[in-house]
Amino acid sequence: MASVTPPRGMRDFLPADKARRERVLAVIRERYRAHGFDEIETPVMEEYARLHAGIGGDNEKLAYNVLKRGLDAEAIRAAAEDPSALTDLGLRYDLTVPLARFYATNRGQLPSVFRSIQIAPVWRAERPQKGRYRQFVQCDIDIIGDASGRAEAELAVATLDTLDALGLTGGSIRINDRRILDAMLEGFGFAPDERPGVLITIDKLDKVGPSGVIAELTGRGADPAAVRALGAFLERPQTREHIPFGSAHIRRALPDGIPDRPVEDLAAIGDAVAASRAERDVPLVFDPFLVRGMGYYTGTIMELAHPSVDYSLGGGGRYDGMIGRFLGQDVPAVGFSIGFERIVDLVGEQTASAAPAVVLVHDRDADLGALLTLKSRLVAEGSRVRLEQRTKNLKALLERAANDGYTAFGLVGADASDLEVKPLG
Amino acid sequence: MASVTPPRGMRDFLPADKARRERVLAVIRERYRAHGFDEIETPVMEEYARLHAGIGGDNEKLAYNVLKRGLDAEAIRAAAEDPSALTDLGLRYDLTVPLARFYATNRGQLPSVFRSIQIAPVWRAERPQKGRYRQFVQCDIDIIGDASGRAEAELAVATLDTLDALGLTGGSIRINDRRILDAMLEGFGFAPDERPGVLITIDKLDKVGPSGVIAELTGRGADPAAVRALGAFLERPQTREHIPFGSAHIRRALPDGIPDRPVEDLAAIGDAVAASRAERDVPLVFDPFLVRGMGYYTGTIMELAHPSVDYSLGGGGRYDGMIGRFLGQDVPAVGFSIGFERIVDLVGEQTASAAPAVVLVHDRDADLGALLTLKSRLVAEGSRVRLEQRTKNLKALLERAANDGYTAFGLVGADASDLEVKPLG
Repeated sequence: MASVTPPRGMRDFLPADKARRERVLAVIRERYRAHGFDEIETPVMEEYARLHAGIGGDNEKLAYNVLKRGLDAEAIRAAAEDPSALTDLGLRYDLTVPLARFYATNRGQLPSVFRSIQIAPVWRAERPQKGRYRQFVQCDIDIIGDASGRAEAELAVATLDTLDALGLTGGSIRINDRRILDAMLEGFGFAPDERPGVLITIDKLDKVGPSGVIAELTGRGADPAAVRALGAFLERPQTREHIPFGSAHIRRALPDGIPDRPVEDLAAIGDAVAASRAERDVPLVFDPFLVRGMGYYTGTIMELAHPSVDYSLGGGGRYDGMIGRFLGQDVPAVGFSIGFERIVDLVGEQTASAAPAVVLVHDRDADLGALLTLKSRLVAEGSRVRLEQRTKNLKALLERAANDGYTAFGLVGADASDLEVKPLG
Repeated sequence: MASVTPPRGMRDFLPADKARRERVLAVIRERYRAHGFDEIETPVMEEYARLHAGIGGDNEKLAYNVLKRGLDAEAIRAAAEDPSALTDLGLRYDLTVPLARFYATNRGQLPSVFRSIQIAPVWRAERPQKGRYRQFVQCDIDIIGDASGRAEAELAVATLDTLDALGLTGGSIRINDRRILDAMLEGFGFAPDERPGVLITIDKLDKVGPSGVIAELTGRGADPAAVRALGAFLERPQTREHIPFGSAHIRRALPDGIPDRPVEDLAAIGDAVAASRAERDVPLVFDPFLVRGMGYYTGTIMELAHPSVDYSLGGGGRYDGMIGRFLGQDVPAVGFSIGFERIVDLVGEQTASAAPAVVLVHDRDADLGALLTLKSRLVAEGSRVRLEQRTKNLKALLERAANDGYTAFGLVGADASDLEVKPLG
């Protein structure tokens, strides 16, 4: 007999957890809609070839693949050396690859600048560990068709407003640009084909520190002069301090020789976001060593931070090249994904909804028609109503109901006509 | 290159469709909660062995199975004669098998009578055809732990109220009991091991008529005397006419020799549902030939009908034996599933939400900070706001926005300070 636990790394949600998740999702959905984004949905499965086209990076290796239907013995034996012949579909490991496919499929029916919301589960066969699940929900917003920094600024403002609406005020966004990173690495002397590997190492800076980064690059045989130049830069005191926004400040945090365009773009995004949130400190922080893992980013990259935690609550960036791979025509795109599973853990228990919730405690022999009539009347008046057959320990029954969010109770005898509803707890 | 369509039989949902689906789901969720049900969630995947334990009936054959991770050539060759060795997980094909597993896993944390809501997609690798999809949403309510007809009555009332709230008034529920069917077949003379097959044939009565049923049973070599007895009963004029509720009427529609218990139970359910909805005709209809496909039903079976369509909008029944198979201890259970995909097609376009929705049409060179400040101010005041860069054909731009549900627009110049918002359309 199969075990009675959910599959490894996946979770059941009991009523209290599920209700909290749905409340948080409703806030996110409502805020994103207010900012002019439109929700879409794609199937959970995509074609195997699409999920394994190199766009998904390391996540491709973690995909759950679906067995072809109707395979016979011969087909299975023939697939021994190439297991991909056993599968035609896979579960999505992110919402970006499906969005690119969706846009290619439906472009004719979408506005020229399309702002999408996707709120949906994704699956990755990761080694299960604390806080990491094999099925988890992502909340993505993307703007397709706008090459200007207006798109990044809209994403940042909508994301911060959503965090505020969830009671998580004080959030900020770390920001950088892949073009700046690339120019920086070029300036240090890293050859073009070395740079993607160097970025992967720099991405670990927060974890291993400057000396760890240098050690790893040296061990991997990177150009010694370039590694020395990077090391000297990392050790500058002003490199890792808090950098106020504005192009002069960004310049000061960077080595010489970085082109103007990405610096001016970042400064303009920061200024606009700050202007729109006049009551607050500038909620953007320039981080010259922010990398983000995915290979498809081509410009701005962002990560969402909150003072209550030392890990990122989400991130995103510009990926102007990806949709072109499906469409055969370049379309600018930028997206931001918030880590729903992390955020839902931070959002405290909210006060129960204002609607009254009544437990009707009835005798075993209560007339069923009278009981249902009573229930339907209270429901029609706007209450949430649960029936409970009376047990010996009425106090325990009522405590459990109060725990489940019920606010009032009524005792129903054999004759249900003279109900008196009293507050619970 | 992979095609740019969604996988066969699966659908993308564009903004207007997705918004409608979410509106309908919100009504269903809210109504079911009002009736005292609590939403839960399970992973989309369950263990292969659990999904293929014989409970899922024909749906087991339609399951999408997930390829084991890390299979080597030897393991694949060894699986040639037994493809199930290639898979350890599958996508759920219904919400009932996962619910039984959930209950077995989490029973200690659930109330003794547990009323669950599940609103979630399921997957079946069916031959694609009009109105039938390989990924579709089911909305199930179940009551676990109540062996009385109170549970059926609560399900029926909650379902009909939800249909009303969606604007689909006038719904009704066809109802029968597997114990009645079994007693009927016994009375006609069908042997116990013949009866499941006979039920499958009777299930086609609406499609093929009495003569079709008789022909199929004869062709399959069923007991000729029993087939004749069934045929005579099917031809009685009163058998297929509308049957008002109440035990006397139910009796009249049945052959002699049916035990009292299931007849009295059905009548009590009907009386209670009718009492709770005093303003309407009795919304239950007894149908002595309602079968429902699944083998796990043990008592009441129900199907949801609506005058606007000639197909069922949902159904359910009592399955007292199933949870015991996982738990090793019998637990009574009854459920009702509404066919979300069918219902969402029937629910008309609702009027747009009352909240204002404003399109800000801006010049290409509008100051980004001023633009975002303006947008944030309107959002904070409760509007939904979309930015649109001005195009030559302003009229077309505004028409498209009105189509997308926007109700007002403002023209923003380089200086965004003097905005005038005008109604759209």
